[in-house]
Amino acid sequence: MPYIPLPEGLPGIRGPMAFRPETAKPINELVEILLRGPNTLTPGERELIATYVSSQNDCFFCQNIHGAVAAYHLDGDEKLVMDVKQNYQGASISSKLKALLAIAGRVQQGGKNVLPADVERARQEGATDREIHDTVLIAAVFCMANRYVDGLATWQPDDPEMYRMRGAKTAREGYGKTP
Amino acid sequence: MPYIPLPEGLPGIRGPMAFRPETAKPINELVEILLRGPNTLTPGERELIATYVSSQNDCFFCQNIHGAVAAYHLDGDEKLVMDVKQNYQGASISSKLKALLAIAGRVQQGGKNVLPADVERARQEGATDREIHDTVLIAAVFCMANRYVDGLATWQPDDPEMYRMRGAKTAREGYGKTP
Repeated sequence: MPYIPLPEGLPGIRGPMAFRPETAKPINELVEILLRGPNTLTPGERELIATYVSSQNDCFFCQNIHGAVAAYHLDGDEKLVMDVKQNYQGASISSKLKALLAIAGRVQQGGKNVLPADVERARQEGATDREIHDTVLIAAVFCMANRYVDGLATWQPDDPEMYRMRGAKTAREGYGKTP
Repeated sequence: MPYIPLPEGLPGIRGPMAFRPETAKPINELVEILLRGPNTLTPGERELIATYVSSQNDCFFCQNIHGAVAAYHLDGDEKLVMDVKQNYQGASISSKLKALLAIAGRVQQGGKNVLPADVERARQEGATDREIHDTVLIAAVFCMANRYVDGLATWQPDDPEMYRMRGAKTAREGYGKTP
């Protein structure tokens, strides 16, 4: 049961977003730019960062919906998404993305946890200033979204097919297109 | 030294916001609506929630700039802002705001930390659904902002007068008006 009355049938963040559309609009705009806007990181890489941070925050809805969006962008590779959540160091991703995920994991624990050595390692793997910036902000944004979703005890269905279908739709159409 | 080259002379979040104006725009819009938009919580109360969460996250820039905005809205009462940061249970604020700060403190630790009893207590003190929603989202948004500011190791000057002046300007004009 959500802590406040939310429209029924809307899972995860979509409940509070329908409850308060004024704040939903800039949140969706921010996520759209960060995860789907022009970028040297692919949408799949950025969704993996969002998924990883959400799994570290133990947010069921966010890690599953963004995991599904990531898998859609990664030719349906759900195993890769699972590998990144469970042990990204051993996953079949670039060394640069591993270094960026390390930064994202530090941000998840708190901004001050990011150390110069983390940033240095990402640079050595070829990360640009913009990629480092965007990784920090994506991780920070999901620390917000995860808290918003769980802090209101939103409805988070179990059915993997729901996440697959909705994830594919979001991957094709973007954020904030359907309430 | 910030981890990426940021425009000089812009403290805290203003550095990365100038570095990446595309994402700054929706962040400012979100904060403007949440902290200054139409609401049954006063701007001072909402800034106190933002300040408290930022102090719990140990973000020097955010707790000082929002503390200064809060003080401006609260007839310059800097002591009250300090009291809320140090021990809000003993501060001269309403029981409702104390219950909302308790929820904000739970959100700061992680969304799942908010318990039904926390929400029940806020309701008993007169909090509405919208006030509970906005408290959770304000706390979540500052968990983002604090991580953005500290995760990039932004410049955060010590001078209290800088925060007073800029805080008063923001309190009068709003967020995102001057880069």
